[in-house]
Amino acid sequence: MPDTRLIAIDWGTTSARAYWLDGGGRIVDERNAPLGIQKIIDRDFAGALARLCGELPSGVPLLACGMIGSRQGWIETPYRDCPAGFGAIAAMLTVVPGTRVHIVPGLICRDRNRVPDVMRGEETQLFGALPDDLRGRRAVVLPGTHSKWAIVSDSGIETFATFMTGELYAVLREHSILGRLVAPGHDASALERGLRHSLREDAALSHDLFSARTLALTGVLAPAGITDYLSGLLLGAEIAAARVWLAQHQLASAAVALVGDAMLSERYRSALAVAAIDATLGPTDAAARGLWRIAKHAGIMK
Amino acid sequence: MPDTRLIAIDWGTTSARAYWLDGGGRIVDERNAPLGIQKIIDRDFAGALARLCGELPSGVPLLACGMIGSRQGWIETPYRDCPAGFGAIAAMLTVVPGTRVHIVPGLICRDRNRVPDVMRGEETQLFGALPDDLRGRRAVVLPGTHSKWAIVSDSGIETFATFMTGELYAVLREHSILGRLVAPGHDASALERGLRHSLREDAALSHDLFSARTLALTGVLAPAGITDYLSGLLLGAEIAAARVWLAQHQLASAAVALVGDAMLSERYRSALAVAAIDATLGPTDAAARGLWRIAKHAGIMK
Repeated sequence: MPDTRLIAIDWGTTSARAYWLDGGGRIVDERNAPLGIQKIIDRDFAGALARLCGELPSGVPLLACGMIGSRQGWIETPYRDCPAGFGAIAAMLTVVPGTRVHIVPGLICRDRNRVPDVMRGEETQLFGALPDDLRGRRAVVLPGTHSKWAIVSDSGIETFATFMTGELYAVLREHSILGRLVAPGHDASALERGLRHSLREDAALSHDLFSARTLALTGVLAPAGITDYLSGLLLGAEIAAARVWLAQHQLASAAVALVGDAMLSERYRSALAVAAIDATLGPTDAAARGLWRIAKHAGIMK
Repeated sequence: MPDTRLIAIDWGTTSARAYWLDGGGRIVDERNAPLGIQKIIDRDFAGALARLCGELPSGVPLLACGMIGSRQGWIETPYRDCPAGFGAIAAMLTVVPGTRVHIVPGLICRDRNRVPDVMRGEETQLFGALPDDLRGRRAVVLPGTHSKWAIVSDSGIETFATFMTGELYAVLREHSILGRLVAPGHDASALERGLRHSLREDAALSHDLFSARTLALTGVLAPAGITDYLSGLLLGAEIAAARVWLAQHQLASAAVALVGDAMLSERYRSALAVAAIDATLGPTDAAARGLWRIAKHAGIMK
């Protein structure tokens, strides 16, 4: 890769993905490995980087985002306050001493009750997903274990909110009574039933979750539909709450952009449609794109 | 126990408790064993009963309630529809063939969306907790892994709602990211902070749960306060939703009665006080009392 100008790394909890970018920000090579920070023994991050990338091209800077910048990562990069634009993020890169590795800070925001929320890695995806000609404000949804709803504008990331949807699904499916009657399978109507149940005005998650059991006990829900129903309940609770949150920020929730894993985004798109929210799918290489943009703003490339 | 007239058994998922009752319904002996239905091998319920009770007094009937009547129990007793009074419950006892063991049916109710809810064992505690001179309707709360809020009157159990508060707490504490930063300890102010956060108007559980992490990350919450904060969030979500539910049933939520384990009831009482709900503690032997009353209605004692 003689024309590599930046090695961009999306380095999370369970996996790491590296992109070789040329002078136009185009991806010329890409590697993925299960070298997330939880998998690294004795904090040997330098060794993990060598395994992920092989020999590094001389003089080319590296820029990483995600949990690699957390307390459990290579070096802790402090959270940057929201609102935050490209300039603010780019001015706050942390360099790992003795390396060419720069790390993007995570973001922190506070809601109207002064309760903090945080992200690490998603801020970079958001910067990658922003269209060049964005005017006004818009809502962006990043589905995942902890899904994030963010409000962005041409001046950057205004604020965001986290929903533990994916993790709640996993722990309830694996470890609670709700997983007991489950049979493998998918059932779109069960997903929609769960969604609509959580979207009703008097929804109450810790009560409604129990209906995944009672509807199965009474034969209304087939064993193969239970997981989709559970997923629908949790997605519906997220969407209902996010809609209120957007309204508090004077943003209509008729349309959002989705950024992230293609399959999960498609699932969110159909769920959002049930709530009459129109969703467009963003770029799938948002992290690489975001890292490139931040690197340019920071001027770390020759 | 020469004057034993009934052996009453509260037989749940993890444990079983037997009471020897005399002609006045007074407890003359009591035994407890970890012989819940999940602990019984090869469905040897008769063997478990012998281990729990020893030699049975000749001619004395037995009456059991709880998960022993579920599909995974000794014999499945169908759910009885709500509203249900003593008479209806007593008329629906199921006898285990070849034994003197009678089993109380569970209850099923349906909310205004026709979504079912179920209980097994709590109906008996409710019948045991009802004062003899009850007039009008009142709310009773039975804390537990799956806590139940019920509306009762002198004509029986009108309806009820389940909240997965205890199970959500356990799975999130043991299996989610929220358990990672936890240190042992108790912190009453963290409990109250969690409660108040979930009692606010725009509370959203799957979002608010993440604050147990962000408040810890930012040092607002000490590691020893995280579990109480999490418990407060979940209790607050239950109380907020139950208050709406009571209002839908035209019942003021200024006062409730608590029935169940003394320590857990005390925790609920202080939580309810934060929400300005006055709670009185019910009898601690509600199951034995309820089984005695049902047995009398059913006329199974000589």
